[in-house]
Amino acid sequence: MYVSVLFSGGKDSSLSAILLEPFFEVELVTCGFSLLPVGEVAAETAERLGFPHRMIKPDGSILEKAYDMILQDGFPKNAINFIHRNVIEHLASDPNVSFIADGIRRDDRVPLLELSQIRSIEDRLGVHYVCPLKGFGRAAVNELVQKHLVIEEGLSEDILKADYETELREMIIQNHGPEKVREIFPSHVQSHVIERRNA
Amino acid sequence: MYVSVLFSGGKDSSLSAILLEPFFEVELVTCGFSLLPVGEVAAETAERLGFPHRMIKPDGSILEKAYDMILQDGFPKNAINFIHRNVIEHLASDPNVSFIADGIRRDDRVPLLELSQIRSIEDRLGVHYVCPLKGFGRAAVNELVQKHLVIEEGLSEDILKADYETELREMIIQNHGPEKVREIFPSHVQSHVIERRNA
Repeated sequence: MYVSVLFSGGKDSSLSAILLEPFFEVELVTCGFSLLPVGEVAAETAERLGFPHRMIKPDGSILEKAYDMILQDGFPKNAINFIHRNVIEHLASDPNVSFIADGIRRDDRVPLLELSQIRSIEDRLGVHYVCPLKGFGRAAVNELVQKHLVIEEGLSEDILKADYETELREMIIQNHGPEKVREIFPSHVQSHVIERRNA
Repeated sequence: MYVSVLFSGGKDSSLSAILLEPFFEVELVTCGFSLLPVGEVAAETAERLGFPHRMIKPDGSILEKAYDMILQDGFPKNAINFIHRNVIEHLASDPNVSFIADGIRRDDRVPLLELSQIRSIEDRLGVHYVCPLKGFGRAAVNELVQKHLVIEEGLSEDILKADYETELREMIIQNHGPEKVREIFPSHVQSHVIERRNA
């Protein structure tokens, strides 16, 4: 069985891939809209983890619509969820993809699909969408991360990750300057995976 | 790291143990209140799966209180959830236990702890409570079960499982006869694990 794990280079998507590895043929998949070289960062991290990696580039209108949403809302939640849902649908439309996974944890609020959205994607597109960390709290995830990964942590503006936030931020900077980003995005700690620990 | 997996002999708790096996030292733990020989069934299945197994016997007042609840409610949900929460607390009070897991799936409604109850147990008792199948829908679970387990399925009254329902049913039969059980419990398909498939 094959699984395509949505991969940002952070600890949660990396750990998800590691948890699935004994049971699936894992490929890491990163979404990019070509605003920043997020694919290079992700590909390098994927190689260090030992998983095959590929990029997908959904239609740019998704990023543009998310950009409109975030400016109207003044906060990122709905825009990030919108991108996430569309990226999953994009991947699910690939006839070679049957299992899609991501790094959503029990305590995550963004990105997060509603159960009805998940079932709709599974039923319409004939895929399984799985979240290996959904039953794990933050402290349990941290113990597993510490055992299996070497990470660096830093504020979100200093860590280059291949997540949706990175390119949304860039689009806002290009159009409105960095001050607008600070208005919209709360400063929070991000992780970037350096390498895999031999367990 | 050690994990204690709550084990009924069914496919969900068996698969949960298998998913955790590459990352934890797994022990299977079955709760029994000595009304039926559920421990023997569970121990035999655990041996076939290749995991160490032990029984726990929480205070009988838990089963009695659940029995009162189910007769008053006329349906099993609250009583089953009550037993499940108390069994997890009982196990979490063991100073040698740090990770507790169960076989709850994404689409399960019973037993199910509220997030606030989970966090309360984790914070008060210093354990991690994890549900490896929480991010997997029914169809995804079925694919993994088919790959890793040989199971038999049958109606809940015909399959002897080591779950909470089994002894609650027995207590109702002893006090009110089998007709009362059929009133309270919907007839549903249960699984019992026969053996492990070499993947």
